Amino acid sequence: MADFTLDHVIESQQFDRNLLEVVFRTADRMKADLYGERRLAKSLEGRIMASLFYEPSTRTRFSFESAMLRLGGSVITTENAREFSSAAKGESLADSTRIMNGYADVIVMRHNEAGSAAHAAEISCIPVINAGDGAGQHPTQALLDMYTIVDSFSGAGGLKIAMVGDLRYGRTVRSLSYLLTKYEDVEIIFVSPPVCKMEGDIKAYLDRNNVPWREETDLAAVAPEVDCIYMTRIQKERFHNPEDYQTAAGKYILSPQRVQTMKPGAIIMHPLPRVDEIPKEVDDDPRARYFQQAQNGLYIRMALLYLLLKKE
Amino acid sequence: MADFTLDHVIESQQFDRNLLEVVFRTADRMKADLYGERRLAKSLEGRIMASLFYEPSTRTRFSFESAMLRLGGSVITTENAREFSSAAKGESLADSTRIMNGYADVIVMRHNEAGSAAHAAEISCIPVINAGDGAGQHPTQALLDMYTIVDSFSGAGGLKIAMVGDLRYGRTVRSLSYLLTKYEDVEIIFVSPPVCKMEGDIKAYLDRNNVPWREETDLAAVAPEVDCIYMTRIQKERFHNPEDYQTAAGKYILSPQRVQTMKPGAIIMHPLPRVDEIPKEVDDDPRARYFQQAQNGLYIRMALLYLLLKKE
Amino acid sequence: MADFTLDHVIESQQFDRNLLEVVFRTADRMKADLYGERRLAKSLEGRIMASLFYEPSTRTRFSFESAMLRLGGSVITTENAREFSSAAKGESLADSTRIMNGYADVIVMRHNEAGSAAHAAEISCIPVINAGDGAGQHPTQALLDMYTIVDSFSGAGGLKIAMVGDLRYGRTVRSLSYLLTKYEDVEIIFVSPPVCKMEGDIKAYLDRNNVPWREETDLAAVAPEVDCIYMTRIQKERFHNPEDYQTAAGKYILSPQRVQTMKPGAIIMHPLPRVDEIPKEVDDDPRARYFQQAQNGLYIRMALLYLLLKKE
Repeated sequence: MADFTLDHVIESQQFDRNLLEVVFRTADRMKADLYGERRLAKSLEGRIMASLFYEPSTRTRFSFESAMLRLGGSVITTENAREFSSAAKGESLADSTRIMNGYADVIVMRHNEAGSAAHAAEISCIPVINAGDGAGQHPTQALLDMYTIVDSFSGAGGLKIAMVGDLRYGRTVRSLSYLLTKYEDVEIIFVSPPVCKMEGDIKAYLDRNNVPWREETDLAAVAPEVDCIYMTRIQKERFHNPEDYQTAAGKYILSPQRVQTMKPGAIIMHPLPRVDEIPKEVDDDPRARYFQQAQNGLYIRMALLYLLLKKE
Repeated sequence: MADFTLDHVIESQQFDRNLLEVVFRTADRMKADLYGERRLAKSLEGRIMASLFYEPSTRTRFSFESAMLRLGGSVITTENAREFSSAAKGESLADSTRIMNGYADVIVMRHNEAGSAAHAAEISCIPVINAGDGAGQHPTQALLDMYTIVDSFSGAGGLKIAMVGDLRYGRTVRSLSYLLTKYEDVEIIFVSPPVCKMEGDIKAYLDRNNVPWREETDLAAVAPEVDCIYMTRIQKERFHNPEDYQTAAGKYILSPQRVQTMKPGAIIMHPLPRVDEIPKEVDDDPRARYFQQAQNGLYIRMALLYLLLKKE
Repeated sequence: MADFTLDHVIESQQFDRNLLEVVFRTADRMKADLYGERRLAKSLEGRIMASLFYEPSTRTRFSFESAMLRLGGSVITTENAREFSSAAKGESLADSTRIMNGYADVIVMRHNEAGSAAHAAEISCIPVINAGDGAGQHPTQALLDMYTIVDSFSGAGGLKIAMVGDLRYGRTVRSLSYLLTKYEDVEIIFVSPPVCKMEGDIKAYLDRNNVPWREETDLAAVAPEVDCIYMTRIQKERFHNPEDYQTAAGKYILSPQRVQTMKPGAIIMHPLPRVDEIPKEVDDDPRARYFQQAQNGLYIRMALLYLLLKKE
């Protein structure tokens, strides 16, 4: 694994195409081993992962903890570090991090403030993995999203991808846009109500990297032409009056009828949890990949833990 | 273990006499191994149990987690899934269950709504164990209660059993009544204040299964004649005025004096936690089995985890 | 380990000089093994530690859990036993303890009421370790403090030690004073504002054991003459008016300038978390030992778990 040069996993921008390949190949290996001979089942035996969640996210936490346990490691965990820990007494994140260095071999940190994971990584002698820092990054989600696309199409080259819903505040679509620039001939269509449009910084980044993109407001028009629809939830709070929300939400629901207009080989993704934007009738459609996508999170996290801890 | 035909453990009604015997014999084996050669100490190595507690119950959770660890498995856990998880964002239990299928090998679920565990089991590809669903079922408690009786008397045939206290709202006495119909010549005496009488559905079920029962209001009169007193707590909230509660509560306390009127070979059970209904002076009486009963919960849960996960 | 005669670890007063040596030598061995051949990595395999925290303390909990996992054991844990457990239903600590005896091999208990751990130990058939009981004791903190001094100076004899800050309410300085009487020629200087002076009971105890002590109010005057400064935080709530607090707090800050006046071989300790009383510029000074001190907590707790569970 000489190719894996990272000490910490903090943001999507750390990953170039080569690193993505290393992670994805390792995730493939994890998946194969898990359903195969389980030769890696003790590869992190004796290692401890600290789950430091300053805000609760049971799903992300379980995904990381399951990954660590599947590799034979063990876990110390807190569901609500902000309320419970020394942070309440005014301790700095730097001090908390140094203390954790004595108790664990890797830190998985979820924090409500952007930049927290990067700050912890500066101080930490053991690897830090960012499991989401407020409005900032959630790199393992971006990696599992990208992995799901690559895994579904044996690569991401030449694909047309629609991102749908709340593109302005949605962390996942921003990070995925970034990673897509690492692949050739990708084209992105942003589908959202005017109040939730993708921000200019990502559009500029796509321009600089020669990734064609356009904006649409109607999912119905876009569904038939794309290889992948990445759905996200539109939050009521974004709208000034409830009627606007009703109108908007209706337009961004992926109904079974709309699914029927999609290409047979296309895929449907969603970071989950979903509410109404994908009705459960869609679940049995072979194009629905959102549960597989969540499952891929396990392989990606196993891969990262393995790569970070098995370096030496 | 070809006789264990269940995929999930959701309600007491799943257990016929044959299945009860399989579970109880396996519990015996777990107990013997735990204090013996510990040959089963790694039998669930590499397996992960997800403790999904939508309402807190530290004792039940610890009992399950200890059972899993004693068999060499590992655990991912949440004390308060309702508040912390994606459920707060409106995710369906079905979605949560499907996601968990990717992270664990067995789900132990405690939920505040009756029917939740059954609903999860419909979707789940991995075994679901109901650890209590609101006013619904708590089958592992019923099994450990029944096991305690069977274990104390080398069977339950020919026994006279008094159930005492809040029989109307008490989940445990309802489930135990059900399981007792699987044994021969059992007789049940329901001892409660009029406001807390056993519901008609259970009485009708006993009638259909030819189990004789009668109702009493005075524990003092019943204590000398029974083989087993199953005590439960009477909750103040059930009574319209405080005086009625005081009167009632006093009549359903198992004082050391009352214990002295019991048969020498009788047993005293309680699902715990207790408050005043059994004074601690009774603890040293050889008839007191409530701590053993709690301990039996460990063997029963080890047995169920083993039977569910070692099938293939 | 025939010399380790304790069944439970409840208070500092249980430790005489001989027991301290046993614990400290075992802690040395744990440290050496952890960075060496890891021969002890499975020594507590199959054993379960129950973390029963009736009030949250993530750091202490993590330190104990990491210790248990480093020795190959496993853990069942609750962050907030008071709110979540049967205690909320009125169950006694005695009952909770008896139940836990069936689920675990050792109990680590943090409680808000002084005397709780001792009370649990009276009932418990398995070892109980006090992880802090309200205004009472926190013996593992006292042991790790003492170990840090002994480890830094190859013994504690002949040392002059300043304890600084809130000496009246600070549990750690009280316990450390007690343990220091076990060593020869130790001298203690209590440095605090008048409202936070060390209580008379400890001073009387030092007198009875012929340990010289004096009181000062100015850290600047004391810093140059001592071998060890043990800093603690002064809490605003102790002062009647805010101005007094500002004045006091300023006098008890260990600034880099004050550190420069200390002996080259002296050490700086702090139980952590700190707020302002040691600026982070001091962290890189070789005299700063507070992070090492926290790390020593791991070795001490590994040693205690090992000694308590490996007796037979």
